[in-house]
Amino acid sequence: MTPPRPEQTTLPTPAVAPAAAPESPVGARSVGLIGAGQLARMMIGPAIELDLTTPVLATDPAESAAAVAAEVRIGRHDDEQAVSALAAEVDVITFDHEHVPAWILEDIERAGIAAVRPGPAALVHAQDKLVMRERLTALGHPCPRWWRIGSVTDLEDALTESGGRIVIKTPRGGYDAHGVRIIERAEQAQDWLAEHGELLAEELVPFTRELSAQVARRPGGEAVAYPVVQSVQKDGVCYEVVAPAPGLDAEGQQQIQALALAIAEDLGVTGMLAVELFETAGGEVLVNELAMRPHNTGHWSMDGAVTGQFEQHLRAVADLPLGATTALASVSVMVNLLGGTAEDLAPGTHAALAADPELKIHLYGKSVRPGRKIGHVTLVGADADALLERAHRAELLIIDGPAPVAAAPVADAPVTDAPVAATITAAETSGETR
Amino acid sequence: MTPPRPEQTTLPTPAVAPAAAPESPVGARSVGLIGAGQLARMMIGPAIELDLTTPVLATDPAESAAAVAAEVRIGRHDDEQAVSALAAEVDVITFDHEHVPAWILEDIERAGIAAVRPGPAALVHAQDKLVMRERLTALGHPCPRWWRIGSVTDLEDALTESGGRIVIKTPRGGYDAHGVRIIERAEQAQDWLAEHGELLAEELVPFTRELSAQVARRPGGEAVAYPVVQSVQKDGVCYEVVAPAPGLDAEGQQQIQALALAIAEDLGVTGMLAVELFETAGGEVLVNELAMRPHNTGHWSMDGAVTGQFEQHLRAVADLPLGATTALASVSVMVNLLGGTAEDLAPGTHAALAADPELKIHLYGKSVRPGRKIGHVTLVGADADALLERAHRAELLIIDGPAPVAAAPVADAPVTDAPVAATITAAETSGETR
Repeated sequence: MTPPRPEQTTLPTPAVAPAAAPESPVGARSVGLIGAGQLARMMIGPAIELDLTTPVLATDPAESAAAVAAEVRIGRHDDEQAVSALAAEVDVITFDHEHVPAWILEDIERAGIAAVRPGPAALVHAQDKLVMRERLTALGHPCPRWWRIGSVTDLEDALTESGGRIVIKTPRGGYDAHGVRIIERAEQAQDWLAEHGELLAEELVPFTRELSAQVARRPGGEAVAYPVVQSVQKDGVCYEVVAPAPGLDAEGQQQIQALALAIAEDLGVTGMLAVELFETAGGEVLVNELAMRPHNTGHWSMDGAVTGQFEQHLRAVADLPLGATTALASVSVMVNLLGGTAEDLAPGTHAALAADPELKIHLYGKSVRPGRKIGHVTLVGADADALLERAHRAELLIIDGPAPVAAAPVADAPVTDAPVAATITAAETSGETR
Repeated sequence: MTPPRPEQTTLPTPAVAPAAAPESPVGARSVGLIGAGQLARMMIGPAIELDLTTPVLATDPAESAAAVAAEVRIGRHDDEQAVSALAAEVDVITFDHEHVPAWILEDIERAGIAAVRPGPAALVHAQDKLVMRERLTALGHPCPRWWRIGSVTDLEDALTESGGRIVIKTPRGGYDAHGVRIIERAEQAQDWLAEHGELLAEELVPFTRELSAQVARRPGGEAVAYPVVQSVQKDGVCYEVVAPAPGLDAEGQQQIQALALAIAEDLGVTGMLAVELFETAGGEVLVNELAMRPHNTGHWSMDGAVTGQFEQHLRAVADLPLGATTALASVSVMVNLLGGTAEDLAPGTHAALAADPELKIHLYGKSVRPGRKIGHVTLVGADADALLERAHRAELLIIDGPAPVAAAPVADAPVTDAPVAATITAAETSGETR
C-alpha cells in the first residue's frame, strides 16, 4: 500500500520560484584529452593557466603530450574500457584526433559518464568524409563535385563524368596526405575499394590557393570566428600559414567566417572547428575538409591572437565563455617543422633563436623522422613575405641543423702535415697527459 | 716504473686546431625548478614549447607547480640532499624563490653537479638585503639612505639621523610585506634585533610612485631589458602594473633600463632580474629591492610581450639566446588576484570571461586565503585607465564571486505566504513526485 503523501496536499502551490538564487554558471573543471599527440600537448599550457585538470590518454608514455602531462593514463583511443575510465575521472572528454570510434563516445554520452565534446553526432562529419559530403551538400554548403563509390562501375562513371581524373579518398582513417590518391583508371583504386567497401570520389578542383576558416563553438551555441588564413601544403601536409589570408577583403573574410560558423551550428560542433577550403580563380570557395579540434592552420594564434586556439578549444569544450579572436599584429605567419636531416634539434634551435629574437619556437618532443611534424615556428609583424622568409630560415636551421662552424684559419701558423688524428689518439690513450 | 708514452714524443705539436669543426652551441635540455609556487608553475607552459624538461622540487604534491608538473620530487628547498638530488637529474637548477641556502648551492656548483643559475654569488644580493645595500652602494648605484643596525644604539642613531622614523627590514627571509616595519622608537625593533642579530634600516623615501625594471642575462653576458613598468602595492603586495610606466619618457626608460642592465652585469646575474625602484618627485630613482627570478611586476609580459618573462628566464638559465622584449600593444596592464570572499574561483572566473572576451586569466591552483596571491589577470590595449578599470572589474568578480542571480519576479503572480521551504521539503521526501 502506498503511504499517503504527508501534508503535501494541504500546501498551496508556490506562485514564485524558490527564494534561493539560482547557481552562477560554472564551466567544467577537468577535461580528459583522448590521444597524446602535439595537439593535446599544446593544450596543457593554457589548461594550467585556466586551472583546468587535463589527464591524457596515451598509448605510450613517450608520446608528445604524455611526456609533459601531470597525469597520464596508458590506453588506446579505440579501447572502450580505457576511454571510459578516463571519462569517469573528468567532467568532459575531448580529442587530439578524430579516430575514436563513435560507438564508444555514444556509450559514454548515454551512460552520462562525461560530456563528450565535440559529441559523436557532430564528430562523425570529421571522421567520415562520405557522411560529411552528404550532409554539407544537403545543407547547401559549397562542396566540390563528388561521388559515392561502391563499385568499379561507380569509379568508371565518376572518371567519365569528371573528364578522366578524380581524387579518391578513404572515408575514414585518413590524415594529412594519407588516404588520398589521384587516379585516372578505375583499377588504381580497386585495392582501397576492396578494403573499405565505399570510397569518396571528388573532382580535382582547379584551386588557386587553400584557405582555412576556424571557429569555436560552445555547447549552448555561442561561437566566435578567427581571421581566415591562407595555407600552403607540402606533400599533403600543412606547411605554411599566413594570417589573415593576403588579399582577401573584409567582405570575403566575413562570408567565409559566416560559412564556417554556419557549419559549426548546423553540425552542432563544440570546440574548435577548422574548415579547410579551396579558393578558385573566380573567388568561389569550396569546402575541402573539416577538423573538430585545434588545427595546424590555427597554430599562428598561439602567438598572434588574443586567445590562442588551444585555450579557445578548452574554453569551448569546458563551456567557459569564449575569448577574443583578435590578432595581435597585422600579419602572423606559421611554418611547420617537418623532420629533416638533424636528429637532434637542439643545435638548430639554438642557432634559430640567436638569428631571430622575435621567433617563437614550439617543439613537440617527438623523435625525428623525415617529413614528420616535429614542431612549428611563428612570427608576427607587418610584411608577410619578410616574415615567411625569416620563418623558413629558422625552419631550415632547426630541421637540418646549423652549418658546421668552420675552424678559424690561423694566419701565421706554419703549414704542417702533422697527423693530427694520431696526436689526439695518443693523447687520449695516455692517462698521464690528463 | 712509468711506461714510456708510446710514439707521442715523436709527433710534432700541431700548429692548427684539429680539423673537426667545433660543436654548435646547445643550451641546457633540462632545468630543475627549486620550489613549486606560482612562478615555477608559470615556467611549465613555456618549457613545454621549448622542449625543456623541468622537474620540480616541491615540499608538498599539492603546491601550485607540483600539481601541474610532469615530474615532481618531494623535498625541502633547504635540504641539501633534496636539492642535490634534483640537481643531479638536470643540466641547470633555478628557483621559484630566493630562500635556498647559499652553502647548498655553493656545494652543488663546486661538485659540478649542475649549473646553478642565478649562481649563489649573485643570488646573495637578493637573499640578504644588507649585502645588497652594501654592494650597490659600493658600485655607486642609487639607494635610499641606509644603516646597518647591530644594536639599540644603532637604531637610536638611525632614528635621530632620519628625523624620527625609519623603515626596518630583516636582512633575510622577507617577501612582500613580511620582514618590513616602520618604527619611531628603537624598542619597536628590539624583537627582530634579538632574533636576527643585524637589521637593515632605511630612510622613508618620499616616493611619488614605484617602478620596476626587468632584465634577463645569460651566463656569457648577453642581456635584454623589458620596458620599465609602474607598479602599485596593496598592503605591501604587488597589486597592479602598467607597462610601460605612464609618463616615463624614452630617456627615462633608457636610463632605468641601463641601471638594471648594469646591476645585472655587476652582480653577475643569470636569468631574470627585477629591480624595484622608488621614483621621487624630482624624477630620481632609488633601488628598493632586487629579485633574481620572474617577478610579479613582469606578469604582464606573458600576454603583452613577444617573449614572456617565464620563457625568457628559462632561455637565460638554459643559456639559450634571449628573446625580444618588444610589447605587443601600446599598453599592458596586470592586476593580481588576492584571496577574497569566494572560496571557489570558478563562478567568478566564468563571469569575468563572459564580461570581457579579451581578458587573460592566470590561476595558480592555490587554496584561497584572504590576501593570498591566487592568480592574476592581464589586458592589452591603448588606454591604461580603461584597461585597469576592466581588469579590476574582473578581479572583483573572480575573488569575491559574481553577485547572486536574482530570481526574476513574476509580475502577475498572486502574493502568497506559502511556506516554500516546506513545500520543497515535502516534494523531496516524496519518492512519488519524482
